Amino acid sequence: MRSYYLAKIREQNPLIHNITNIVAANYCANGLLALGASPIMAVAIEEMEDVPAISQALVINIGTLVGKEIEAMLLAGKTANKLGIPVILDPVGVAATQYRKRIVAQLLEHIQFSGIRGNAGEFAYLAGVDWKVKGVDAGKGEANLNSICQQVAQKYQTIAMMSGEVDVVSDGNRIATLHNGTPMFPKITGSGCLLSAISGAFFAVADKSDYFNAAVECCSTYAIAGELVAKSLKETQYGQFYTGLLDKLAEISAQEVEQNGRVNYV
Amino acid sequence: MRSYYLAKIREQNPLIHNITNIVAANYCANGLLALGASPIMAVAIEEMEDVPAISQALVINIGTLVGKEIEAMLLAGKTANKLGIPVILDPVGVAATQYRKRIVAQLLEHIQFSGIRGNAGEFAYLAGVDWKVKGVDAGKGEANLNSICQQVAQKYQTIAMMSGEVDVVSDGNRIATLHNGTPMFPKITGSGCLLSAISGAFFAVADKSDYFNAAVECCSTYAIAGELVAKSLKETQYGQFYTGLLDKLAEISAQEVEQNGRVNYV
Amino acid sequence: MRSYYLAKIREQNPLIHNITNIVAANYCANGLLALGASPIMAVAIEEMEDVPAISQALVINIGTLVGKEIEAMLLAGKTANKLGIPVILDPVGVAATQYRKRIVAQLLEHIQFSGIRGNAGEFAYLAGVDWKVKGVDAGKGEANLNSICQQVAQKYQTIAMMSGEVDVVSDGNRIATLHNGTPMFPKITGSGCLLSAISGAFFAVADKSDYFNAAVECCSTYAIAGELVAKSLKETQYGQFYTGLLDKLAEISAQEVEQNGRVNYV
Repeated sequence: MRSYYLAKIREQNPLIHNITNIVAANYCANGLLALGASPIMAVAIEEMEDVPAISQALVINIGTLVGKEIEAMLLAGKTANKLGIPVILDPVGVAATQYRKRIVAQLLEHIQFSGIRGNAGEFAYLAGVDWKVKGVDAGKGEANLNSICQQVAQKYQTIAMMSGEVDVVSDGNRIATLHNGTPMFPKITGSGCLLSAISGAFFAVADKSDYFNAAVECCSTYAIAGELVAKSLKETQYGQFYTGLLDKLAEISAQEVEQNGRVNYV
Repeated sequence: MRSYYLAKIREQNPLIHNITNIVAANYCANGLLALGASPIMAVAIEEMEDVPAISQALVINIGTLVGKEIEAMLLAGKTANKLGIPVILDPVGVAATQYRKRIVAQLLEHIQFSGIRGNAGEFAYLAGVDWKVKGVDAGKGEANLNSICQQVAQKYQTIAMMSGEVDVVSDGNRIATLHNGTPMFPKITGSGCLLSAISGAFFAVADKSDYFNAAVECCSTYAIAGELVAKSLKETQYGQFYTGLLDKLAEISAQEVEQNGRVNYV
Repeated sequence: MRSYYLAKIREQNPLIHNITNIVAANYCANGLLALGASPIMAVAIEEMEDVPAISQALVINIGTLVGKEIEAMLLAGKTANKLGIPVILDPVGVAATQYRKRIVAQLLEHIQFSGIRGNAGEFAYLAGVDWKVKGVDAGKGEANLNSICQQVAQKYQTIAMMSGEVDVVSDGNRIATLHNGTPMFPKITGSGCLLSAISGAFFAVADKSDYFNAAVECCSTYAIAGELVAKSLKETQYGQFYTGLLDKLAEISAQEVEQNGRVNYV
């Protein structure tokens, strides 16, 4: 795998508008800064036209959505679509409650997402495949993961980024499987949310025609960063991992990504 | 003291529903993950029946309560009561404002709490004892702490877990005093909130008839984890303590708890 | 520069009421605790008279302001003004959206701020000077920074604290330039928000007639703490910097501040 967009993020320092949850907002902002992008975490409906207008990507995360935030998300998403900047969806725990299902259906109906980033449980729901979810965690199922990911990409005409022990990225035709990472990722909160935020930065500096490769590079870079941090830690040092991942996102080089990346195209 | 429920949490990985504040939400989620439980931080009223239905415990924390969140808390609490899963209350700073007093009265009127976790100032208020609080901190008073804790347990038919230099746990009859901990705890934000969240995990894997012992083990385990982390730090390294506590919650063994626990039954 | 108020904060442990954003709330609370103050992060309008009444300062930060929070801010600010406790404004990203401009205008109209803390982009907007902002970041401009800061102080009859490579503090007459700090500050989220929170603690223990010196000491102490932390780190260790800054705020001594402070009075 080639590392191309990482350098572009650090050169261009894109502004990424995040509408995200109260749990991961801080980590998303710190992670974007570490990587070389700039976060703006505005959530008020009154500024959902102004902020996309100065941003290079929008990331919508439904993690702790309440009240009228859905309206702010819809307005921001429509504005971003009009302006032609990429929009990413993180459908946190979509299958866990009727409310989340309804909210995500609304978002998917009114906004064209350049990318959707989630775990197997969330993607199985989006693809309409049987799955046993567990809250906002991935859960377990028998279905073929590559196929689920591809179906999400096809159904929503988007780049599907599915996180797990093996990450899968698909544009509906192509499927890439990414064999980096560490079991420490699901042991810290917001590791998926941060990946979604960071995918905003990769999409922001890519041409629309190359979003698939940007997504593969994004998910690989993130997984490799985590993998390298975990190597220097005991398997229970989740606190250190949380902090060290920020350090590594700032430090990781194109060379490290290229040397460590293990990507297969199915 | 015997360490029994810690292993059960790690085996069963219970899902803990937290309705908590914007300051400690991230730390509560990370702490639960570190310990071996799973957090779900949903707060929207529209999902306050669905989320308790998939959770093994509910933790309600009023730290930065605003607007209609009280209605969401009430619905979640009533649902949890109906389903028979344990519900924990953290009445953050209850004595500090009329609003908090009113909110907590409403919660206590409509929800049966399996446990209440707070500091001396909060418990003195709940017990109706004179006390000088200071914001959300414990403050100072002359009353007998063991007695205050026991009164809270009796008055609300709950397991009372009172944090301080010495922790006190009571079921209204029995009183345990816990002599572990470190002065670093009150120097990091959310250390009480995280203990409340974690008590949800201990209650989740215990039988109702044994909540008292689960509470004693929970507060001891947490205090010992902090004590062991603090031993390796300078007394001003609060940032390192904040991070290290997560590491230790993941690493701490039954043996460490049993060897270090200093519990007296009054 | 003399370090005077740092010791007072540690002696008096003032309670600082913060109405702040979901991104930095945790860091502000931890930073205030580390320094030796106590945070209270209440945001509900129903307690915006009770909380200022027990606090020694109020800090208003508009970072992720939504819905009716403006009304809570106005009520808290007016109450604090009535009570005579200092009020600090952090006009996060004010120039980025029409909404933020409107909100900040309302706050400035109805509340007398003892201090305003922001970056060059925010201050240029407040002073009515041409500037190219970038989201919530400082952006770039040609105008004289000292003059901008002085104008903000004069226009709003406040102590203006402008953060940047060189910090500038002015009371409208006097101008101090502060030559400490590290490029790592803008690479972590909430570093400005935390400085605003901490300025609440410095103002809380100072006499009104000496707010200018309290502000100079505050901004210097913070910049020096960051500078000393950065010295022991690689330039990409933003995660470690985030954590280490808390440690250093707790550890820093009057002597370290006095030996390292580089303040010029223009």
